[in-house]
Amino acid sequence: MLSSSGCRGRRLRLLNQLGDGYMVIVADPSHLLYLAGYEALPFTFRSQESAALLIFDRERAVLVGDDMAGPYLQDSQVDKVVATCWYDGLKAAPHRRSLLVESALEVLRDWKFGRVGVEMAAVPAGVLEGLRTLAPGSTMTDVSRTIRALRRAKDADELEVLGRAMAAGEAAHAAILREARPGMTELEAYQIVRTAAERSLGQPAIVYGDFVSGPRIATEKGGPPTNRRIEKGDLLLVDFSVKVGGYRGDFTNTFAVGGQVTAEIRSLYKACLEALAAGEQVLRPGTLARQVDQAVRASFRANGLEPHFTTHTGHGLGLGHPESPYLVSGSDETLVEGDVIAIEPGLYIPGTAGMRIERNYLITAAGYRTLSNHKLQVEQ
Amino acid sequence: MLSSSGCRGRRLRLLNQLGDGYMVIVADPSHLLYLAGYEALPFTFRSQESAALLIFDRERAVLVGDDMAGPYLQDSQVDKVVATCWYDGLKAAPHRRSLLVESALEVLRDWKFGRVGVEMAAVPAGVLEGLRTLAPGSTMTDVSRTIRALRRAKDADELEVLGRAMAAGEAAHAAILREARPGMTELEAYQIVRTAAERSLGQPAIVYGDFVSGPRIATEKGGPPTNRRIEKGDLLLVDFSVKVGGYRGDFTNTFAVGGQVTAEIRSLYKACLEALAAGEQVLRPGTLARQVDQAVRASFRANGLEPHFTTHTGHGLGLGHPESPYLVSGSDETLVEGDVIAIEPGLYIPGTAGMRIERNYLITAAGYRTLSNHKLQVEQ
Repeated sequence: MLSSSGCRGRRLRLLNQLGDGYMVIVADPSHLLYLAGYEALPFTFRSQESAALLIFDRERAVLVGDDMAGPYLQDSQVDKVVATCWYDGLKAAPHRRSLLVESALEVLRDWKFGRVGVEMAAVPAGVLEGLRTLAPGSTMTDVSRTIRALRRAKDADELEVLGRAMAAGEAAHAAILREARPGMTELEAYQIVRTAAERSLGQPAIVYGDFVSGPRIATEKGGPPTNRRIEKGDLLLVDFSVKVGGYRGDFTNTFAVGGQVTAEIRSLYKACLEALAAGEQVLRPGTLARQVDQAVRASFRANGLEPHFTTHTGHGLGLGHPESPYLVSGSDETLVEGDVIAIEPGLYIPGTAGMRIERNYLITAAGYRTLSNHKLQVEQ
Repeated sequence: MLSSSGCRGRRLRLLNQLGDGYMVIVADPSHLLYLAGYEALPFTFRSQESAALLIFDRERAVLVGDDMAGPYLQDSQVDKVVATCWYDGLKAAPHRRSLLVESALEVLRDWKFGRVGVEMAAVPAGVLEGLRTLAPGSTMTDVSRTIRALRRAKDADELEVLGRAMAAGEAAHAAILREARPGMTELEAYQIVRTAAERSLGQPAIVYGDFVSGPRIATEKGGPPTNRRIEKGDLLLVDFSVKVGGYRGDFTNTFAVGGQVTAEIRSLYKACLEALAAGEQVLRPGTLARQVDQAVRASFRANGLEPHFTTHTGHGLGLGHPESPYLVSGSDETLVEGDVIAIEPGLYIPGTAGMRIERNYLITAAGYRTLSNHKLQVEQ
């Protein structure tokens, strides 16, 4: 799903950042996707195990895995794939992760000496141990944070994948707004959301998030769905991500199931909409992340509601959750063109109501573009 | 879900196996579950990141993670949990995996010198680098394979979790046998299976496996569900696992959707049942894994069908897929009491039919006990 040119471009940016003569070893699953287009899905018996990416230079990125991950390796975007035979259906299979370490070291055997950038927080210790023996004079540098910093501004191929994830999320929001009924459990609401997302995608997907209803919203603010039955008129908060090709959107609505809301709840919901709009107004490259937080809080304050906004204002979106930039009071980050972010104002007033709304945005040179296009409405 | 005494017992077995004076560092997610009862589910925004388990001695197993994994850390079965603050909603969060490495090293700071068993295939390189600085005289031993070998014979708490996974699988098999209809897509069949499994469990679950229909069975033998529409009379192969607490059963049926089968298909299905029974007959401690394969193949051979049995005979079950013992022709493994295994005979004859059936068993002192109790029938 990520493109060959996108993955290559990201590898080049990494090498440029490190300077001349570095080879790089990557193993964080998110970064195997980011830099090599490799993703092992959890929906087949070809169960997930890590691979490793060896970036020798601009022209030689080698992805190391095993035969059980074969189809995923073949779909990756690298110069060469090494797929060791782990299980052939004829002999007992060895320890899978150890085989992977050995395979990576076999590929590294050609490499003699030099500077190595290692994702120290993810590459298995066995690879580093072996490398010290193979190339004892090498200098090792941790590149964990370097790669993470690259992830901020999204490339065109990343935005395309994010767009697919968000389209599935929009279909799922539409489905639950239409189909939620009193008497249904939160778990059943979750299943409606996921089924609609998968129908939109045409394939199974991980869908996760907050599915809470009634008084649970104000007290718990989030959490996975339970067997609680939604009563007529209960608010239902649906805040979820559909993971597609490793990327996920993340947007929210809260609405009353099978009933109308009181004037008070309508007014609280309106305050959330105003807070969201206030955050949107400052979205542009150069805005401090904490200014977005300040704008949202100021809007709630103007309505006398700030003490009830007890969750964070927003965060970056992409391969992890949450990720940079963090739209919070103490953040020292600055918005950059290409950031994809979420703003999610909410109010949590035990005894009265709990609610949250959320949209996703791309920061552009001109300001921002709204990426999520679900309906924000408090009644069905 | 795994018990405190079970996790402690497994840690003691590991320490006993290594001998006196070892401390052990574990990071493979499956083994954090196996030895510490720690599992980070993919269904919440508290997204999955690794933790690390530090087993100092018989009385001191410390699990290191961060606040976002807090609820999962609290549910774990260790002597102490260290949950570093990664994201407080007030400041931008640092690189999560690097923080984990630093947290593990902080806990290791007290430890002076000695023998260390390290899961070299899983522990991040940064932990080992740091340990070499903290305790330069230590000797490091790879324990990756040692832990894997322990996993063969299942403990009572593991069987309890496996039982929950299998009960959900049985409910899901019953649902699809009842509800599959011509015109439905494979993806919709998968959704019926998953919804029924989740209803049985009362919570979201990862359900994965082979959902293939019609001519696809003989040619592809497996694979995730597609948007192919099932036609009246098509065979539908459902071979799936419901993951519960990290463990999964894995059993299969193949049946005709909305129609009767021909005498030929009925006869092929009967041959699969006979092959399954032939495999069952040799199940007991001390049987060579390859003897199970031989028994199943001999049964197909007696029916003149062996050339069409082109998948493996079976495999162990538990935290991974597939895992030891491997019931294949070249396996050098021997069944032991406590093994949990699957036998899955199938026939793949392009132009005629494809089918597979599968049951799960516990190897007992007396022979075996069938753990999966779904219906094996070729018509609805």
